[in-house]
Amino acid sequence: MNPLNEVEILLVEDNPHDQELTLRALKKQHLANHIYTAADGAEALDYIFGKGAHAEKPVNNSLKVILLDLKLPKVDGIEVLKAVKSDERTRKIPVVVLTSSKEERDIVETYRLGINSYIVKPVDFEKFMKAVADIGLYWLLLNQVRP
Amino acid sequence: MNPLNEVEILLVEDNPHDQELTLRALKKQHLANHIYTAADGAEALDYIFGKGAHAEKPVNNSLKVILLDLKLPKVDGIEVLKAVKSDERTRKIPVVVLTSSKEERDIVETYRLGINSYIVKPVDFEKFMKAVADIGLYWLLLNQVRP
Repeated sequence: MNPLNEVEILLVEDNPHDQELTLRALKKQHLANHIYTAADGAEALDYIFGKGAHAEKPVNNSLKVILLDLKLPKVDGIEVLKAVKSDERTRKIPVVVLTSSKEERDIVETYRLGINSYIVKPVDFEKFMKAVADIGLYWLLLNQVRP
Repeated sequence: MNPLNEVEILLVEDNPHDQELTLRALKKQHLANHIYTAADGAEALDYIFGKGAHAEKPVNNSLKVILLDLKLPKVDGIEVLKAVKSDERTRKIPVVVLTSSKEERDIVETYRLGINSYIVKPVDFEKFMKAVADIGLYWLLLNQVRP
């Protein structure tokens, strides 16, 4: 299914605790082998567009989903979203906002900018693990981004 | 959770067999109470935009997901998609393409037009039921479209 061992999930998350829980939930579903974690928006953009520390790589074409926190150091999640969705080469990569914000402003603005899905991080541990597992299974196994 | 008993799922599907299976799968997850089925693209547009037989209703604001087949009578799925995603009032409604087409042209074109997700209908009965259940649970219970 993934013969080239390509990265399929980009997790953009600065909180080490949420990073760890997310990875653990994906590992349980055997979805964590093909994940790259960026701890801020600048690193995420470098990774996606093959710049900076990732300048040897082309613009990313293997991602099946970007899990994007909104409040990020250096470059904000909204700016990452704008860059991905305004570029013809990357706009078809599904972007799932995974955030603690329930604010209407964030929901409305990110849908306007073309996110594919908006998920509020459950506070409860078990619900958080279940939500991440469901997100991973949906976007990696059910959704299609290419034939 | 849905005190006004509003319709949350619009199923746009002309094949009676697929309609029935989809409704049955959603019923199993207790998600079928809030569904409206349109058998062609024209009826879907009337329903969404409050026109024709639905002229008494305002533009729809309660939908949490539109499950959209592509090959439809009267008005094609692509045209329904274009109308929904080019109108500020409706573009935030998640549109999930649910089709038998695995053609690259359809996948690329519908992502370009702003779909939220693309699912190929599994041919196997059990897999079809499971896919529809997962789609329903994801978009009704996990994804947020409003605060």
